[in-house]
Amino acid sequence: MRNLLLTIRFDGTAYHGWQVQENSITVQQTLQDAYEQICGVRDNITGCSRTDSGVHAYKYCCNIRTENDKDCNELVNSLNAVLPQDISVIKCEEVPYDFHARYDCISKEYVYKIWNSPVRNPFMSKYSLQYKYPLDTDMLDRQVKAYTGTHDFAAFCASGSSVKDTVRTVTKAEIKRDGDLVTFTVAADGFLYNMVRIMVGTLLEIASGKIPQDTIPDIINSKDRERAGITAKPHGLFLSDVIYGKG
Amino acid sequence: MRNLLLTIRFDGTAYHGWQVQENSITVQQTLQDAYEQICGVRDNITGCSRTDSGVHAYKYCCNIRTENDKDCNELVNSLNAVLPQDISVIKCEEVPYDFHARYDCISKEYVYKIWNSPVRNPFMSKYSLQYKYPLDTDMLDRQVKAYTGTHDFAAFCASGSSVKDTVRTVTKAEIKRDGDLVTFTVAADGFLYNMVRIMVGTLLEIASGKIPQDTIPDIINSKDRERAGITAKPHGLFLSDVIYGKG
Repeated sequence: MRNLLLTIRFDGTAYHGWQVQENSITVQQTLQDAYEQICGVRDNITGCSRTDSGVHAYKYCCNIRTENDKDCNELVNSLNAVLPQDISVIKCEEVPYDFHARYDCISKEYVYKIWNSPVRNPFMSKYSLQYKYPLDTDMLDRQVKAYTGTHDFAAFCASGSSVKDTVRTVTKAEIKRDGDLVTFTVAADGFLYNMVRIMVGTLLEIASGKIPQDTIPDIINSKDRERAGITAKPHGLFLSDVIYGKG
Repeated sequence: MRNLLLTIRFDGTAYHGWQVQENSITVQQTLQDAYEQICGVRDNITGCSRTDSGVHAYKYCCNIRTENDKDCNELVNSLNAVLPQDISVIKCEEVPYDFHARYDCISKEYVYKIWNSPVRNPFMSKYSLQYKYPLDTDMLDRQVKAYTGTHDFAAFCASGSSVKDTVRTVTKAEIKRDGDLVTFTVAADGFLYNMVRIMVGTLLEIASGKIPQDTIPDIINSKDRERAGITAKPHGLFLSDVIYGKG
């Protein structure tokens, strides 16, 4: 019995997120179908996180405990030959049997893209949120620094989430501009349900003046979901890095 | 009666090229539909070139001779509000009544993108041709220099084309690499049907050894379509610039 770590990349436009669910096409199901087609068995594939419907991944990790003895490079090529064009397998490597793609992850990084122009970019429509009014990215970069550190992010968690411990440590939060493209990058030891999207929604309400500047610390302290901004749409969000402590 | 020059951008994935045709969705038809919805009349919109099914445009120009007296900026906003996400209007300006988007164009530039990696990039699948084997881009850049200058490009014109004069002047031809992305950029006073795609097909057959290096001048001189390479797929091709002499 081996344990294989797969690194994949996917355009999430056509998928209802990672996790298998009835009556919807998901990345996990599509990958398990491809794997079954190649290996003849339906092993469960464990992902590093659930992702929302429409969210993309530059890098996503998952592991498979399997009896199959296919060579790793051969498995990458075979999977890519049968997977649809919007998913690709970048790498396959053998890891210790007790490795778990979700529990052993020590840090993740997300990128949220905002197309900041009154005129949309047809090539970015599925990969960014369009925001038509000017954004003061220096001001926003100062605001997001309040996200860094160890905080109880209950105010930035979708209501109805069953998670008990809402304390997370954010190690990076920055806003950058490249022409009309504004990017929010955030890294943490873990993320609550919809956390990045609520962080972005809050930023955009600060930009529009609906939420006052320099109030992110107060919003965090309130632990009140109502105080934070709306949940920004999923299609601007990319999982960009997944880091493991070992292996 | 005014004459309006529209600059647009489109992701061509869903379209059967620019020109209106029966039973297929085209960019021209979609733009004319949007224009009719806004202005209440169905004026003909004249494009700067036909484009093949699946070809994209960073910049495409077209003109409309019209009785409507809408403000140009207002027209841009209104059109963008009703157009689908994969087409956008960048600019609208009034031009002299005799201006013609096709006949007055003095130069066009195209970019062809090649994803040069054994592993596909899901975000580039619709916007590049995947080529799995190593490409020597320095060698290819030397090869494409033979495309520059004034030549009879009959060997690089789709057979069956009815055009009589196959002489064109290529003012720029270069190959560049940015990581796994290899880009062929070519500018000319005009292009024959499928010319860029045949230029790319020829380059890839030089890369694979099927066509010998340094034979592009011979292929041009032969004026024989059979001597050039295959027609590369349309989805890697972008119209990137359109230049007018005046206006």
